[in-house]
Amino acid sequence: MATNETPEKRSGGLFVNQLEPICAPATATGGAVAIVRVSGKRCTDIVATIFQTATAKPLIQAASGHARFGHITDEDGQVVDECLVTLFRAPHSYTGEDCAEISLHGSAYIVSETLRLLCKHGCRMAEPGEFTQRAYLNGKMDLSQAEAVADLIASSSKAAHDVAINQLRGHFSDELARLRDGLQRLAALLELELDFDEHETDEFADRSELFALAQQAAKRVKALAQSYDTGEALKNGVPVAIVGKTNVGKSTLLNRLLKDERAIVSDTHGTTRDTVEDTVLLNGVPFRFIDTAGLRHTDDNVERIGIERTYKAIAGARVVIHVFDETPTPEERNEIKRLAADKGLVSVRNKADLLHDPGHQDQQDDYLFTESHDQDLQGELQSRDVIEISAKHDTDLTSLEEAIFAAAHLDALAESDTIVTSARHRDALLRAHDALLRVTAALKPSTATLNPNTANFNSISTNSEPNSKIPSLPPDLIAEDLRLAIARLAEITGHAITPETTLRHIFSHFCVGK
Amino acid sequence: MATNETPEKRSGGLFVNQLEPICAPATATGGAVAIVRVSGKRCTDIVATIFQTATAKPLIQAASGHARFGHITDEDGQVVDECLVTLFRAPHSYTGEDCAEISLHGSAYIVSETLRLLCKHGCRMAEPGEFTQRAYLNGKMDLSQAEAVADLIASSSKAAHDVAINQLRGHFSDELARLRDGLQRLAALLELELDFDEHETDEFADRSELFALAQQAAKRVKALAQSYDTGEALKNGVPVAIVGKTNVGKSTLLNRLLKDERAIVSDTHGTTRDTVEDTVLLNGVPFRFIDTAGLRHTDDNVERIGIERTYKAIAGARVVIHVFDETPTPEERNEIKRLAADKGLVSVRNKADLLHDPGHQDQQDDYLFTESHDQDLQGELQSRDVIEISAKHDTDLTSLEEAIFAAAHLDALAESDTIVTSARHRDALLRAHDALLRVTAALKPSTATLNPNTANFNSISTNSEPNSKIPSLPPDLIAEDLRLAIARLAEITGHAITPETTLRHIFSHFCVGK
Repeated sequence: MATNETPEKRSGGLFVNQLEPICAPATATGGAVAIVRVSGKRCTDIVATIFQTATAKPLIQAASGHARFGHITDEDGQVVDECLVTLFRAPHSYTGEDCAEISLHGSAYIVSETLRLLCKHGCRMAEPGEFTQRAYLNGKMDLSQAEAVADLIASSSKAAHDVAINQLRGHFSDELARLRDGLQRLAALLELELDFDEHETDEFADRSELFALAQQAAKRVKALAQSYDTGEALKNGVPVAIVGKTNVGKSTLLNRLLKDERAIVSDTHGTTRDTVEDTVLLNGVPFRFIDTAGLRHTDDNVERIGIERTYKAIAGARVVIHVFDETPTPEERNEIKRLAADKGLVSVRNKADLLHDPGHQDQQDDYLFTESHDQDLQGELQSRDVIEISAKHDTDLTSLEEAIFAAAHLDALAESDTIVTSARHRDALLRAHDALLRVTAALKPSTATLNPNTANFNSISTNSEPNSKIPSLPPDLIAEDLRLAIARLAEITGHAITPETTLRHIFSHFCVGK
Repeated sequence: MATNETPEKRSGGLFVNQLEPICAPATATGGAVAIVRVSGKRCTDIVATIFQTATAKPLIQAASGHARFGHITDEDGQVVDECLVTLFRAPHSYTGEDCAEISLHGSAYIVSETLRLLCKHGCRMAEPGEFTQRAYLNGKMDLSQAEAVADLIASSSKAAHDVAINQLRGHFSDELARLRDGLQRLAALLELELDFDEHETDEFADRSELFALAQQAAKRVKALAQSYDTGEALKNGVPVAIVGKTNVGKSTLLNRLLKDERAIVSDTHGTTRDTVEDTVLLNGVPFRFIDTAGLRHTDDNVERIGIERTYKAIAGARVVIHVFDETPTPEERNEIKRLAADKGLVSVRNKADLLHDPGHQDQQDDYLFTESHDQDLQGELQSRDVIEISAKHDTDLTSLEEAIFAAAHLDALAESDTIVTSARHRDALLRAHDALLRVTAALKPSTATLNPNTANFNSISTNSEPNSKIPSLPPDLIAEDLRLAIARLAEITGHAITPETTLRHIFSHFCVGK
């Protein structure tokens, strides 16, 4: 893989360096049609060697993007298949190189024979993601767009799809380009201001303007990094923990929530991931429901492990559904409040008269919360939105589902804002934010106070010091931090030189043929 | 489905009746690329409604077969995917109708959204095989070629593939056309001869010439019908029964035969059919090995069922591998001879010194064949080709595999002759042969004797009477039987009117999207 390509070669998309020819199946086994994809130096010649076009004009003269009917023959002259071949000539192709797409009958034998013949005549089998990597190297898309291709193919819900297609279409790239431009303008202004500094005395007016610009950029970078939690939830399902005492109907509620949707979700995924069977789509967003062991004291070691898992599930959840039958005690209420402090909380009262069927008679003893009733708490619970359901009977769950969706706070989604779905992107954004915090600290006018959003953001950054310790840099070093922030943002789209290991990591997650 | 199409509309391929627009995924879920196929009246308009081309020229003006880049949007203007759309204009398309192929990112969500939008704008989901059925109705291929499409897609071995591709490319159709032409010429000559009959006396010279022609056609039709057994074996694997007394190493031999190939076969099939795991490819032909219960007397009811299954497996086999350790008794020899009378027989002596490991010590008692030694038999066995192996040790199995392949008598394959793989085709050929037998009987010159091949063939025909009873038809009824034979042959390619039920049966075996 020619990761020693210079950025110049990539950026324009005009000069294309054709790499060694590669081939791969681009479709899954089992359909009516199978596509074999070929790209690279001499790939047109290689395909023309095994393909006899049905028309008089040789394949080599075919117009770019025009499908030709003909047949593939092996070395003995035996016809392997009748097929369509479409050539896409550089740079007007997916990879930017000369490409060919061979549309075959969907037989595993035909596909493997075709690949064998292509390899015999000079191709090699492509590595996962190699076509898309070449598209990136040839400037057909930037790195974040290339990563969106893999997300798009993997997307099985509308929400995950919408995020991926927006990223593929360059919305995130455009936003990053605007941020980089802004920071570059800031660097220019800073230089100007520093020049003025030497001759003028009125320093602070310009400084506070620069500060405002840097603060605005830092705020936006922070918001993007924070959107990762939402992006992660959209990709892998919003984690929802169902908690409450034992025997209040948690499992029954889970089954009710999953009941009708389970088949649909399975159809869409087509995979056998363990979590899939507990996922449903609400408004096109996957929600991953986690049933938990009841919260209670126990001396049983095995059961204690279950309860530890419960706490872990709650810690990882974005939404907590608190299920109870009779009014919860203050102890239970406080415990849930503590556990769900930074999460969406949905309170569900399961109608007591319908509970306690014979199948739920175990684990009745020794609750974590004693059964003392509390009039104040009842009033408080009534003022909160408590959703009353009968999990066992087929009452309408619409209001509960709406409450769960609202509690997930997927605000960025509603605004169709840019959402970060890659841990690599979040890390780069956090590092850019660190640099920008140093810039704002250095530029801070003596009268200005730090934007509290920007300051608090530090808590989610793993690499920066507490805000109070940000050193006030000498003005001539601010430019260096700005350059650092710009470079970090450029890493995301690959506009900075990206180390080969990073590239390899990104593209190894692709399926072959992409 | 417009099965009320007249043959005129089909035959030329020029006048195309565009049916209601249909759509379907043409690729399996899980690849990098997914193809959605659209065909029928207004399908270009429907695709243009949801697809925004990236170029200035509208999609509707795109040249036939030229891929256009753009994106699909839903009713809210949200981009569903960036994709390529290729229009194929009637009659230059797979179905002969206006067609479109949409090449999408391989996401289940994107495919289902695209299909939803197409259906919203007037398409309906295609039934299995409906695209190919339209290709047939529009004269793009005949019925036997259409059936070959399904065979080709299902083919997972070189042998099955080669038969299907030859049929798809019209080799079988051409052969049938030549046969029909010959019989039509025969009918014309017969009429001429009958005309002469009224005025001339020299009847027999012409009659024997006509007889020879009819006999030749009957012989060829018989050969084609007989090739079905080979075709069936190539499609589903040559059935090979491994038989012998208990504890002679049958299972070990089976495992040896399957060992290295099993993974390859599984890869190719990608299915979970029970028989797959017992199939290996020898020279590109699938062989289905059936391990059998040992042949022995038993009073155990359950075991008797196993032995009945053994006899059934042997009856359905094309090749029988007889495994023994010590020299078999005359009883065993005769039993095997009887069972394998019409099959290929391979005798394997498993080296006795390496048998009888602890894992094979059960079922040693009460053999069907007593252990009496017979010097004559030993001589006979030495004169036969007995292959000596050590199933437990990793000796070379090449000579055994060669013997198995030879015993399958896949002669038609070696000559790359036409092979019939469809029971429907065989039935039509058998019926045509019945009619031709009556023709030859009627034309038989008094001095001529029936060709023994043609006569014997009766035994595989289910519908005809024994040869000796063929009635000698009056000459003016011979033409009717010739017409019948021609019509039966024409049924295979669909050049005779085919009942709708037959059509529905044929195309219901296709996958959706073909």
